[in-house]
Amino acid sequence: MPKFAHVFQGTAFSSKSFSEVTILKDYLYCINQNGIIEKLISPEDKQYEALLNEYEGKENFHRLSEGEYVLPGFIDLHVHAAQWAQSGTALDLPLEEWLNAYTFPVEAKFSNLDFAQSVYEDLVKTLLANGTTTVLYFATVHKEASLLLAKICADLGQRGLVGKVVMDNVEQCPDYYRDANTEIALKETEEFIIEVQQLNKQTKQGIFPVVTPRFIPSCTDEALKGLGELAAKYNTHIQSHCSESDWQHDYVKDRFKKHDAFALNDFGLLQEKSIMAHCNFIADEDAKLFAATGTAAAHCPISNVFFSNGVFPAKHIHEQGVDIGLGTDVSGGFSPSLFDNLRQAVIASRMLEEGVDTTVSGDKRGVSSSRLTTSEAFYFATAGGGESLSLPIGKIEENYAWDIQIINTTLPTAKLPIFNDPLEDVFQKILYLARPENIQEVWVQGEQVHRR
Amino acid sequence: MPKFAHVFQGTAFSSKSFSEVTILKDYLYCINQNGIIEKLISPEDKQYEALLNEYEGKENFHRLSEGEYVLPGFIDLHVHAAQWAQSGTALDLPLEEWLNAYTFPVEAKFSNLDFAQSVYEDLVKTLLANGTTTVLYFATVHKEASLLLAKICADLGQRGLVGKVVMDNVEQCPDYYRDANTEIALKETEEFIIEVQQLNKQTKQGIFPVVTPRFIPSCTDEALKGLGELAAKYNTHIQSHCSESDWQHDYVKDRFKKHDAFALNDFGLLQEKSIMAHCNFIADEDAKLFAATGTAAAHCPISNVFFSNGVFPAKHIHEQGVDIGLGTDVSGGFSPSLFDNLRQAVIASRMLEEGVDTTVSGDKRGVSSSRLTTSEAFYFATAGGGESLSLPIGKIEENYAWDIQIINTTLPTAKLPIFNDPLEDVFQKILYLARPENIQEVWVQGEQVHRR
Repeated sequence: MPKFAHVFQGTAFSSKSFSEVTILKDYLYCINQNGIIEKLISPEDKQYEALLNEYEGKENFHRLSEGEYVLPGFIDLHVHAAQWAQSGTALDLPLEEWLNAYTFPVEAKFSNLDFAQSVYEDLVKTLLANGTTTVLYFATVHKEASLLLAKICADLGQRGLVGKVVMDNVEQCPDYYRDANTEIALKETEEFIIEVQQLNKQTKQGIFPVVTPRFIPSCTDEALKGLGELAAKYNTHIQSHCSESDWQHDYVKDRFKKHDAFALNDFGLLQEKSIMAHCNFIADEDAKLFAATGTAAAHCPISNVFFSNGVFPAKHIHEQGVDIGLGTDVSGGFSPSLFDNLRQAVIASRMLEEGVDTTVSGDKRGVSSSRLTTSEAFYFATAGGGESLSLPIGKIEENYAWDIQIINTTLPTAKLPIFNDPLEDVFQKILYLARPENIQEVWVQGEQVHRR
Repeated sequence: MPKFAHVFQGTAFSSKSFSEVTILKDYLYCINQNGIIEKLISPEDKQYEALLNEYEGKENFHRLSEGEYVLPGFIDLHVHAAQWAQSGTALDLPLEEWLNAYTFPVEAKFSNLDFAQSVYEDLVKTLLANGTTTVLYFATVHKEASLLLAKICADLGQRGLVGKVVMDNVEQCPDYYRDANTEIALKETEEFIIEVQQLNKQTKQGIFPVVTPRFIPSCTDEALKGLGELAAKYNTHIQSHCSESDWQHDYVKDRFKKHDAFALNDFGLLQEKSIMAHCNFIADEDAKLFAATGTAAAHCPISNVFFSNGVFPAKHIHEQGVDIGLGTDVSGGFSPSLFDNLRQAVIASRMLEEGVDTTVSGDKRGVSSSRLTTSEAFYFATAGGGESLSLPIGKIEENYAWDIQIINTTLPTAKLPIFNDPLEDVFQKILYLARPENIQEVWVQGEQVHRR
């Protein structure tokens, strides 16, 4: 038996498949020096007692208390980090006003590195405190501030995938907030990629650069083409927005005579490590293209309510073989919590299935077979996020990273209503009722990164 | 100047009208011995300095710290107290299975007063910790356990309106969980009313009995008639469910050849102190009857997602003069928080307005002019609840009860993302991002009932 860096004992919940959750009751979790789950040992296993005897009482042995449970850390596939400064505000405004009166001015302030430091550090700490261990970030157009975000993730122990945003289309971007020109946008993106790949070499949990055209409307053809080439050259992740709203969907149809998915693909922007936010209006052919290229969709159920004109048909798109994870979309979505977002993923799916307008007869009101179960929404928040990023994260399984959150259900100030429930119900109660306060510890790649 | 029981100094947010919020910046709030706001004094008022000098430094003077704000306590118009034991579970099930496999068996357990004590005490404390100062409760059919809930509210300082549930229709109620017969149902209801009205005499914040036919399907005509008479005789509040789902709405149409509202009215169950839960399927004539009788609607936006087949058109119904407040509907709604529910009230209204099915063209997808603003949802959670109950609560105004929550936005473990924001934005950030952890103190009728 090798020497482990840490051994945990307790009960964990993890996705076994899209619809099924496995309960690892009183297991031992053996974490190696690289922060990987090397062995999962059930109480029935004959090594269990020996291992317990070997580690019990040692400093690197962690027995969960009564009422504590392990969940995989959450994976947030869509965060506009700079917008954290305005989270929760201006949600009554239409998108255009929200962008021009609030969002672009806020993002423009990230030329100031002091401001960037204060907002980004607060955000990364907040996301960790919400149990989110891996995040796919849009930063801003500013290369230096984007690098700062990557460094803050590295320092605070979060697995960050960070993009310097490209927006070079003078027709669609305000003059106070855009790339100086296409050439500079591409040059700075390349420099950013190289610097972050350097940073990654010194970072245990991984820090990755992401090629990030904001969305098609804000980019010129030359920028989109150049970004596709950079992603291929450096084998990076790619992120953008795809068919988010009526307006965006129609804009792209007008400019390219095709849907976002096919336009993005023409520029080399759909591939195994591509994650496209929203995708509310993608058609079946678009979904097939996603599945064929390995492109994932970031479902942002709270944000969609405010700025997207409809519900992402997650169940239907998933059935077509598309990888799906969840995104908070701070600050189109007000909440930094994937607990809130997985609840809203269930809610949105139910509202799509039932329909909303009670003056319409029941048989014509909704779209049948749209509902997500609680376990399926949990899958999106964890394992689905890992698949989307092509990283071994999001499950409590051997050879996965030890990225976890420990949920305490018995805190006097935040007790969950558990009265002798079976573990299946404890799991449901955690998913629907846990607050950040219940998240006692968070670990990323075998390192403790948050504790309260 | 009279002697006040308490004087607070700080900034509060309160509804000025349905759509407008007033900001009481650095006001003094003078609370009398009865727990009523006797004077609100602005910093511009010439009494301000004198009063400050008189009270500052005294034990009953409370200056809010930097980053702390006062909101009115929330008013929850619909809680099935017994269902707290199962909150967050079984939400993937259809209503009938949810009721028969989970809900009725759980409610039946409240014949056991020890179990009732543990669940009810936990619930009342939880609701207080969530900033909810007044609650309209369904208990269960059991008179003793229902009285216990009223006593727990009295002891813990919450303003409770409690109903012993009546369900005497053998065709619709399981034999292990219903009133023994109609006569006993009415007799026990009357005894319950008398005992709670006695209890109220010793309770500063008010504890009120509520006539509570579960809903029309679970009651015989005789029970409904008798309950209407009891409500009139003892001048009590009345609560039930009204046109919640397709099934209920159709059942009543079938049995009475009219909508719930008119059927309830025939039994004397719609009046100034009536609050009907859900009302998702009420027609304009029903709404007019509500307005004419003073009946209020309890909007339960989270619960509606799971069991109601559509969105309550809150904006439209409110425009017809109907009083509306919010209900968590624990446990059809999983969350005990009215913060969560006011967020969902906004979300549901936006989804009704935008529609949900992205395969339908934008102009046919939703119901225009349905959206609620953040301030309007806040109104429902506070002032609208007070109007619905015909009680002077839900606003920070003279002659209203000092029912408040103090929100701390600067806790190291739960800091809100406030970066030099104007107070209008602070208010929005509190509404969208506050957690129970941010609720530092809760007061009801001038008494502190929760602190952390």
